[in-house]
Parts: sequence; structure tokens; C-alpha cells
Amino acid sequence: MPPNEQFLQLKNLLAEIADLNYAAGLLAWDQQTYMPPGGAQNRGYQMATLTQIIHAKGVSKEMGKLLDGVQPYVSQLDPDSFEARLVKLTRRQYEKETKVSAQWVADFAMATTAGYEAWGKARAENDFKLFQPHLERILELGHQYVEFFAPYEHVYDPLLDIFEPGMKTTDLKSIFLSLRPQQVALLKKIADRPQVEDAFIHLAYDEQKQWDFGVELLTKIGFDWNRSRQDKTLHPFTTGFGLGDIRITTRVLPNYLPSALFGTLHEAGHAMYGLGSAPSLDRTPLLDGASAGVHESQSRMWENLIGRSLPFWQHFYPRLQEVFPSQLGNVTLESFYKGINKVQPSFIRVEADEATYNLHIMLRMELEIGLMEGNIAIKDLPEVWNVRFQEYLGVTPPDYTKGVLQDVHWSKGLIGYFPSYALGNLIGAQLWERINADIPELPEQFRRGEFTPWLEWLREKIHRHGAMFEPQELVQRVTGSKIDPAPFMRYLEQKYRTIYGF
Amino acid sequence: MPPNEQFLQLKNLLAEIADLNYAAGLLAWDQQTYMPPGGAQNRGYQMATLTQIIHAKGVSKEMGKLLDGVQPYVSQLDPDSFEARLVKLTRRQYEKETKVSAQWVADFAMATTAGYEAWGKARAENDFKLFQPHLERILELGHQYVEFFAPYEHVYDPLLDIFEPGMKTTDLKSIFLSLRPQQVALLKKIADRPQVEDAFIHLAYDEQKQWDFGVELLTKIGFDWNRSRQDKTLHPFTTGFGLGDIRITTRVLPNYLPSALFGTLHEAGHAMYGLGSAPSLDRTPLLDGASAGVHESQSRMWENLIGRSLPFWQHFYPRLQEVFPSQLGNVTLESFYKGINKVQPSFIRVEADEATYNLHIMLRMELEIGLMEGNIAIKDLPEVWNVRFQEYLGVTPPDYTKGVLQDVHWSKGLIGYFPSYALGNLIGAQLWERINADIPELPEQFRRGEFTPWLEWLREKIHRHGAMFEPQELVQRVTGSKIDPAPFMRYLEQKYRTIYGF
Repeated sequence: MPPNEQFLQLKNLLAEIADLNYAAGLLAWDQQTYMPPGGAQNRGYQMATLTQIIHAKGVSKEMGKLLDGVQPYVSQLDPDSFEARLVKLTRRQYEKETKVSAQWVADFAMATTAGYEAWGKARAENDFKLFQPHLERILELGHQYVEFFAPYEHVYDPLLDIFEPGMKTTDLKSIFLSLRPQQVALLKKIADRPQVEDAFIHLAYDEQKQWDFGVELLTKIGFDWNRSRQDKTLHPFTTGFGLGDIRITTRVLPNYLPSALFGTLHEAGHAMYGLGSAPSLDRTPLLDGASAGVHESQSRMWENLIGRSLPFWQHFYPRLQEVFPSQLGNVTLESFYKGINKVQPSFIRVEADEATYNLHIMLRMELEIGLMEGNIAIKDLPEVWNVRFQEYLGVTPPDYTKGVLQDVHWSKGLIGYFPSYALGNLIGAQLWERINADIPELPEQFRRGEFTPWLEWLREKIHRHGAMFEPQELVQRVTGSKIDPAPFMRYLEQKYRTIYGF
Repeated sequence: MPPNEQFLQLKNLLAEIADLNYAAGLLAWDQQTYMPPGGAQNRGYQMATLTQIIHAKGVSKEMGKLLDGVQPYVSQLDPDSFEARLVKLTRRQYEKETKVSAQWVADFAMATTAGYEAWGKARAENDFKLFQPHLERILELGHQYVEFFAPYEHVYDPLLDIFEPGMKTTDLKSIFLSLRPQQVALLKKIADRPQVEDAFIHLAYDEQKQWDFGVELLTKIGFDWNRSRQDKTLHPFTTGFGLGDIRITTRVLPNYLPSALFGTLHEAGHAMYGLGSAPSLDRTPLLDGASAGVHESQSRMWENLIGRSLPFWQHFYPRLQEVFPSQLGNVTLESFYKGINKVQPSFIRVEADEATYNLHIMLRMELEIGLMEGNIAIKDLPEVWNVRFQEYLGVTPPDYTKGVLQDVHWSKGLIGYFPSYALGNLIGAQLWERINADIPELPEQFRRGEFTPWLEWLREKIHRHGAMFEPQELVQRVTGSKIDPAPFMRYLEQKYRTIYGF
């Protein structure tokens, strides 16, 4: 068969795999929104069956043959073309998936199922020892996984590569080693200033009104309801079933305004990234964003750089006051802005503010790398956690539940994922500097409630490319430099200087 | 491999197919409840991909080999055992699916897609000629399908067998030829009596209150919310994703109380049938009910035999009056009961009452059989429809939209489906006589709001068996005779004698 016809066959096979992935995605979405409790066992079977078929197609002989067969066709194309990039990414995934043994996949599934259960118990009983043997097994499997990819530059690289394609541990180290002391220093400067007031965000807020305000907000920022929807869930997430249907979920808390407000903007950022993909990427592995970190850059920009900015609230605050007159009627815009940006070291990552969040992440990243390098023993993990936490954030967790046992990730075998959260913040700030240089009137536009120019910019520079470029490559193309922590620090310094007056 | 091990392998393969069917079911459920409009195209691809995989597994060489391999194992078992019945049904489906050519499947998909579109247009423009060539093609494909199963006793048999396994056209003819004149005669008796009043069901009813009352009703009749849920849709349906999750949907009309009220009970009847299956049937083709007709017997019993009965409303009417005091406060129980049972010939099948519904079905069934036999020409269909309609129901449709073009079924290639609707009514009445003989205090129980004994009876006699028995076989086992129209006529006669006083 001629190579260009083989390319069409490859595209068909990838489209089938995409369809199955979207179907699996809907099973997961439903499980977390509407599924009755009795459906859990069947849903587990359905997911396992679909996952197995998807995997089999991904590592099939047919896939290998087609990838070889299309080589003559794509080698004569522009390496940045859709076709060339599609084949490049597919080959990359195929080579990774075929290297990992079926035995490992089975062992990993078993270890993480048991690990997740043990973690839940350990957390409830505040007893790290209950989780320790499971974490040991998961780490052992992490080492086995890494060996499939030998030789490697650093033992953590193959794990990191799952979530940040092409990124190396040396990159991480050079980025975060310089960033951490600066973040710690900023935190000290803030701690020396009088604290801002945020009691008003903890009042009782009618849940339906919160929901309706969120919908109003989404509509005004240009959210595409024709290709999306929003539903309630326990742990908010975004998921998509092809370019025509990418959905968000939100949690509304009755006594804490920021949860729904900023959670909605965060998830909308993820969804708009996907929805902005070029139509040609639909039903291909290029439809997903460039990486978990780049995805997080989009969600954090909407949540923080825009959602917690003064111009945004100069536009929306009068309306929010109108919806919640008894809670916010006497709170000035300035007080509101300061309150939603209050900095206070806390133990739980998911509740952390912009100034402390990255420190939570860096701690986890350093521990993961240390564990993989063999420089930290698992039995010492709780102690090391607490000592570093005190060092970075100035407080010591009172128990494991608020310390080493708080995150689900390790129990599910997600080693290498945490860096993406912090990288998202850094990439977001880099893009933010770039766009503000490109569109100097951006703050003025936000003040007027105009979000189209900004969204168009993101679509053009980031969204439409999907996973065409690896994260470092994408950031380089858009900002002119690789991932760099300086813009993020400049952003934080400037923001909190105004708020805390140092 | 020993035959009993092959049986386990067969079960695994069937479980995989079931999982994929459940996943496809969720895609369809979502499409009709929550999917944003933009998702339609992707959803089409996803359904096509899943359907193709399901079909390939169903007719695979592996399936054929396993079916042969397990023969020595099941031939020594009780033919009524789960294992023997599972293999029997699977072999039956396998033989049917493998007989039909891939070309036919592709042609049928094409013809029905075009047919459905043409039907919509023809209906909107009240122009049968727009639909005629499409119906001709669909009928041609019907004939081709039938030839895959030659020799047959009657040309309509292979079509009927899709929806009512084991049922023959001669059965249908003997059942309905005697029934039709009796139904026509009953209708004449009713028409001679003064009409009952039902203006109150057409008042404005708050939609949320209708919904909440439906939920209350479902809860009180013992609906299992742990394994089900209810959502809104345009055309109500029931669908399931395994034994732990079978869901209903409902439509609420603001100015017509019966739609949500009886629609909810109807769908609940379908769901309770599935939810009552024996756990061993889960993830096997035996989980679905015995046939479309037996399924319809369950839904129509809840909708009509119970839901439109006096004892039921003796229990629930005070509460309904409480919810809608301004609409029903001055309507007596007796008036309400008569109103919801008003008989009036109308043109539209889906709005027909209990006394006229079967006549709508018999008309369609006779036309289908006539078309397949070649005794009716498609070009004469509108005329034949109207003449017989006048004969059976005493009125003539004013246009095609209210006549021959009203149903979607033929445009989608569903020839052979209509009989199931009428069979459901007959089977329901047969079961009704049986259960009232077994539990004479049934009406008294309903009056007290006790539905458990009745539901237990259904579970024991019908639900738990799933598709273990063919419809005729099942009815015979439970009632002692094959499908028989006499109980249905007795039920109608008795009910309307009281209401209309003839």
C-alpha cells in the first residue's frame, strides 16, 4: 500500500482509539456526576474492558506496521506539519507503551488498587506505617518502570516524561532550585506585614446563587455552551469526548465562596484549552494539550492571573455584590480583592494561596526525586516532610493527615505528576508577561468585561496547537525562552507588594 | 481445553461484549439527556466505533469455536439451567448475526439514515411521496434480510423474530384476528354512552411539583434508587448499564398531567424488570428481558393496570390533591379516575387510551404483514391506512402527519416491532389475572400503599429469569397458557363497564 494511504489507515486507527478513549471518558464523567451508587461494580468492569481494548490497539502489530509504513511519506513533509507531528507523537507513545511489559501493567494495577485502599485507611487512622509497605511496592514498580527506558540521564526522567513530554530532571532542578529560596523570602516579607481580612468569604452563601453566578461569569468570559456543560461533583475536573464536547464540573460549598468561584474559572481554563484546538486535531492523540503542566498554565491563568486580579473584579464585583448584598454589600472592592488574595501558610496543598502553593509542590517534587535517587528512605518520609515543611512554610504539620498522607497521588502510583502543578504556574506567568506586552490594553479590556482579545491570543498561540509541540518547545515558540521562573516571581512580588504594602 | 473451561472463556467473551454494550448504552443515554449540541458528530463516531467492535466480537471465529467447544459440557446439563440457556441464546444470536451479510448491514445503515431524514421532511410537508422511495428501499432490504433465513414459514417471521424470539406470524394472526372485532365492538359500546369529563388534566401543573410527585410515587412503590435514577428527556426511555445501574427518563408537560405521571410509571416498569434479574445474569445476554413484548407487559402493567386503577388512586389521590389543590381540590376521586381513563378515538398512537391503543397497533401490524406478503403496494399505503382507520376507530385522519407518516419506526427500518406493543398489553392482562388469583387481597394492598407482595411476585415469576425463556414459553410457564387475548378483553370490558355504565 502506498505510504500516503497507510497514513490514512493510521489516522483511522487513531480515530478508533480516540473514540474508545472518549467513551471511557464518558464512563468516568458519569461515575463522578450522576451514576447511582449501585453502578460502581459494573462501571469498574466496563472501564477495564475498554482500557484493555484501547491498550491492545495501541501496541498492536498493525500500529507498528503502519508507523513504519508511513515513514517515507512523512519524512518528506515539513516536520512541523500536522501529519509529521501526529506520526512523531504516535511513534513516541507506541515506543513507550511497547517497552513496558504486560506483567508490569498487571502488577501496577494490583499494587495501586491495594495502595489506594491502604492510603485511605492510613489517612483515616493517621498511621503512616499502614501505607509504608504499599508505597515501598509502588516505588519498586516505579524503579522497574524506569528500567524499561534505560539508559536514561536521571532515574526520575522516565516518570516525569509521562506527564511532561521531553522534560528532564535537570531542567526541573535548575528551575526550582533558584525559585524556592525566592518564594521563601517573599513569604517572610509578607509575614512581617499586617494580615488582610477575609472573614466575609466564609459566610453562608446560597448554593444556587453561587451556581448561577458561576454560569453568568462563564457566559460573559465567552465559554462555549454549545460544546460544553457544567455539572456538580465532589472533586472538580474537566473531561472531553472529542472537540465538540468538553465538560467541566464544579463543587459548591455553602460557607466558602472561593471554592465554586475560582474552581469554576480553573476548570473553564482547562476546557477552553481543549475547545480551542484546531479541528484537524479531533479524534487524534494531538487533541489533548501539550502536557499536564501546560494544561495547568491555562487553568491557573483563569483562576489566578485573571480571576484573582483587580481589573476582573472591577468589572464583576458590583454584580457579585448585587447577588450577595447581605454578605458583600459593605465590603469594598479593595477589601474583597485583598481578601481573596490573602496569604497564609497552611498545611493542605489544595487550599494553598498563590504565594505558598509552589512550596507545597516543590516539597513533594524534591521528596519524589530523593526517593527515586535513593537519598531518602521511605521510613523517614514523614519526618523529612515535616522538617522541610517547617523550613519552607514556617509551620509544622500537627499530624500525618495534614502532612505526608494528605495527597492521593502516590497511592495511585502517580510519581512524577506533582511538578506539572508548579510548572503550570510558571508557564502561566511567562505567557502573562508575553500577552501583556502584545496587548498593553489588556487590563483595561478586562475592566470593561472584554475577554475576546485575550482568548483569541491564547487560541492562536497555545490552544489550536494541542499536543503538536512538547511543552518546552511550545513555551519557547511563544515567549522566546524556555520555562523560566523569573516572570512568576516578578508577578508575585508585584502583586503582593501592592496588597501587603512592603 | 476442557469444555467447562471453554464455557468460562465464553462467559468472559460475553461479559466483554456486555460491557461494550453498556458503554454504548451510556453514550446513547447521555446523548438524550445531557450532551451539549456540539457533541453530536463525535458521538456518532463513538457509537459507530463501539458498534463495529461489538459486532466483530459477536461474529468472531473465537465465538464460533467456543460455542462448538462448550457443546459437550452443556448437553449434559439441565436444559433449563443458566448455563444451557446462556449457550442456547448465544448460539441463536450468533447464527442470526453470521447469516446476515456485511454488505446488507452497510446498505441498511445507509438506507435508514436517508430514510429517517426523508421521513422527517415528508412529515413536515405532509407529503408521502417524499418518503415513498425510501420506504421502498427499506422494504427491499427487509426482503433481502428475510432471505438470509430461508426457508421460513412466513415472510414476516424473520422480522418478527428480531423482537419476539420464537414467535410466528401465524401466532400473531390467530391472536389478533379474534381480538380486533372485539375491540371494535367495545369501542362502539363506549361511544354510545355519555362521555366522561377530563378537562382538569389539561390545566397548568407546575413542572417541578410534577417531577417531585413522580419521585415520591416511585419511592413509595419500591423503586430502587440505589441502582437507578431519573432524568429529563424529550422522548422517554429506559436504559441500563448492567444490573447495578438501570435508569429511566421522563418528560414533564406543563399543561398535561398524564404525560409525566403515567410515563414515569411506564418507564419504572421497564426498569424494575431489569433490576429484578438474577445476579448471575449480569454481563450476559440473558440480562435483557425475554422480548420487547414482555418488557412492554411490565411497563404497561405499572402504567395502566396499576397506575390507572381505582385502588392505586384511593391510596395516592389525597396526596396528589394536596400537591395540586387549585387544579384538583374540587375534583372527586371518582371523577379523577374516570378522567384519566377517558376513551376517545384519536389519530395519534402515542396519545391513545387503553381501549383504542391496540387498534392503532393492529392497523400497523396488518399493513406491515400485507406489505411483506405483497398484498399491499407502498403507493396505496396512505389510502389503505385511512380506510382501515375509519373502519377500526370510526374516524379518518385529516392528513398524513396524523396518519401514515406519524411513526418513526419504518423510516428506521423497524419492521416487525409494532406487534410487541400490543403483545405487551395482552401478556400484562394475562399476568394480571394470574396474580389476582394468587394474591386475592392485591387491590386491598394497593389501597394501603403496599406494593411489595406484587413486586415480589413479578420478580419471582418474570423478572429474575431475564431472557432465559422465550416469550411464549415464559407466559406458558407462569399462566399455564400461551399468549391469549381473552384476559385483556375481559379486563377492558370490566373496567369500562364500570366507567361508562354500559
